[in-house]
Amino acid sequence: MNKKNNFDELKIKIEQKTARVGVMGLGYVGESLARGIAAGGFETIGFEIDPKKLESINAKNIPNITASVEVKKIVSCDIICICVPTPLNEDNSVNLEFIKIAAEQIRQHLHSGQLIVVESSVSVGTTREVVAENLDQSGEEYFLGMSPERIDPGNEKYNLNNTPKIVSGVDDYSLQLMVKFYSQFVVEVVAVNSLESAEMTKILENTFRQVNISLINEFADYAKARGVDIQEVVKAAATKPFGFMAHYPGIGAGGYCIPVLPYFALEDAKKKQVNLAVINAAVSVNENRPKQIIQEIKQLIKKQGKGNDTKVLFVGIGYKPNSAEIRNSAAVKVFKFAEKSGFKVSYHDPYVEEFENKKSVPLSEVSLDTTDILVLTTAHKNINYQKLLKLNIPIIDACFALTKLKL
Amino acid sequence: MNKKNNFDELKIKIEQKTARVGVMGLGYVGESLARGIAAGGFETIGFEIDPKKLESINAKNIPNITASVEVKKIVSCDIICICVPTPLNEDNSVNLEFIKIAAEQIRQHLHSGQLIVVESSVSVGTTREVVAENLDQSGEEYFLGMSPERIDPGNEKYNLNNTPKIVSGVDDYSLQLMVKFYSQFVVEVVAVNSLESAEMTKILENTFRQVNISLINEFADYAKARGVDIQEVVKAAATKPFGFMAHYPGIGAGGYCIPVLPYFALEDAKKKQVNLAVINAAVSVNENRPKQIIQEIKQLIKKQGKGNDTKVLFVGIGYKPNSAEIRNSAAVKVFKFAEKSGFKVSYHDPYVEEFENKKSVPLSEVSLDTTDILVLTTAHKNINYQKLLKLNIPIIDACFALTKLKL
Repeated sequence: MNKKNNFDELKIKIEQKTARVGVMGLGYVGESLARGIAAGGFETIGFEIDPKKLESINAKNIPNITASVEVKKIVSCDIICICVPTPLNEDNSVNLEFIKIAAEQIRQHLHSGQLIVVESSVSVGTTREVVAENLDQSGEEYFLGMSPERIDPGNEKYNLNNTPKIVSGVDDYSLQLMVKFYSQFVVEVVAVNSLESAEMTKILENTFRQVNISLINEFADYAKARGVDIQEVVKAAATKPFGFMAHYPGIGAGGYCIPVLPYFALEDAKKKQVNLAVINAAVSVNENRPKQIIQEIKQLIKKQGKGNDTKVLFVGIGYKPNSAEIRNSAAVKVFKFAEKSGFKVSYHDPYVEEFENKKSVPLSEVSLDTTDILVLTTAHKNINYQKLLKLNIPIIDACFALTKLKL
Repeated sequence: MNKKNNFDELKIKIEQKTARVGVMGLGYVGESLARGIAAGGFETIGFEIDPKKLESINAKNIPNITASVEVKKIVSCDIICICVPTPLNEDNSVNLEFIKIAAEQIRQHLHSGQLIVVESSVSVGTTREVVAENLDQSGEEYFLGMSPERIDPGNEKYNLNNTPKIVSGVDDYSLQLMVKFYSQFVVEVVAVNSLESAEMTKILENTFRQVNISLINEFADYAKARGVDIQEVVKAAATKPFGFMAHYPGIGAGGYCIPVLPYFALEDAKKKQVNLAVINAAVSVNENRPKQIIQEIKQLIKKQGKGNDTKVLFVGIGYKPNSAEIRNSAAVKVFKFAEKSGFKVSYHDPYVEEFENKKSVPLSEVSLDTTDILVLTTAHKNINYQKLLKLNIPIIDACFALTKLKL
């Protein structure tokens, strides 16, 4: 009955908020989670190897949070949440390296009674087949759960606290502890029956987004060929009170999750000989979008009789409106394609002061006077598109910022 | 200023409800529309060639509605709504034959000042390129609008009256009349800027459904291969309060619109050299679904060592739960495949007493005693699945009726 005793003990510690919680990885998700847990009244240690992030977190003096590089402190934690990244490799295969490292580090300091939680988005089966398989080698009787993060950067309405949280456990004790723990700082906790259900839920959510973004982007191409205003069509369709959800066209899905997670499904399904035709098509459409836009730029340049010294100014470089995040940004991809093609490229983004040693230029008369083509790539709220329209510089509206003006 | 006079005259007639309205085609859509218009206080004539439907409508004695086969009465109508079917041909090309016939009949009786409305779902451009082109030959100064029907058979919450109605006009007078007319019997009227916007809106709405139904069906295959309960996953994902809309897996999209309209986009986009990869994949997944299920049936029969005389009982033949509609029903397709394969097929459907000379058999002990395999094809509410589960007959749950029991 050792496990039962451990369970009772951790349960009480959670209820009394004396459980100490470790969060591995202090990226956007890890920091948000650590803040939520700390705000819930738990002493929280954030583990991070990037000295810049460490320093920045500690400098913020957030109550109940300390950030540390010393993973051996895991031994002092009752609950450890894994929030490390799960990116794609160059060939779009899933890179679980950080998960494996985290599991290995935890195993080295694991002791019976600890609850280990996977928060990172992972392929179906990873918690059981990668994390548990490693931890089991310790011989310790730990608890294990999976709860996929749902944080939407920049969302002003939904945050960690008021977004229902999916939780799962490798066994019933683990599930009960997961429910108990997350209920301390999240309003609604939704328990599912297996680790794999929780893992797949996150993949479905993001795949839904990817598919619908690709659908509306290809539909936008069709509307353009037909001379129809796609924004008006989406807005009209959105008045249907059932069976429809509006997605607006743009330069393509970016960010940490949406363009990444469909590949998790594709890779795993392929191993199981399941063909995911719709998802396959959707990721292709998304991959192709930046190439389509660079073609459009080249055609315009050719039409104008200009050459490789054409000065192209990109307006917006972030992956979505009103966000500074540039990871997997389609705008960055177009920018780089244009750079490779030899054009003289620069960019303006009020949220992204610099990236890869390039600096945002102001939309001043000087920078605009020397611009041959404007490419609108991210529809940020605080860009004065009316002003750009009046300049008499040819514009490629890749993010549909101008059609939005009319709505 | 003849057109202005005609406009003023029809506007007053609409306001005073003295305008007489013709509805061409009294199928589900035409009858619903005619009822809505009549309930709005307008004298309504329904035109229909099927004597059974004519008789049935007239027998109902609906206030303000008469049904007639005499299209020459069009001449006495101020407003004529086209509600004829726009099916697909065998090769999935769009069949606009009924629209052409309706336009031709209207042209023969057209006079200046009439408002012609296309309510049928049509390819983008049809109202202008097919209907207007024909009517223009009359030399009359008519008004023309397009307002795609949004009727969802069996929807208990949304009907013609409380579902926002998209309207468009070939010119400003026509648009104004469209708004005025529909506002008499629909709570919210949404005007768009072109006939093509209105046409495309309907296609987008239904394509969204088709794509998301195909997505969840292929995802269900993946979940099955992974041993994960797809219903639980969808239910869990549906707790996300943003960026997700739940679609549940089933036997495939059926009915009048959803499996049909994506082809309208595909055919027209192809002419414009636009590739719609996501939509293409979605329609393929949907077309393949019945074939997948017949494969599953054959595998089960083989596994049981049975032969072609296997008795297969299909439970549910309608295209969606709790509806008697069988048009484009995936269940019917599976049934026919099984019949062609030589199996002894029968079906039970509490809503569909008969189709194509086959009669629904009761789920009595007699019929079940002689059944080798049960295939659940439509998840009707009033079927006792618990009872079927206890029978010890092998079941193929193609419509996920049994997993729904758990939710």
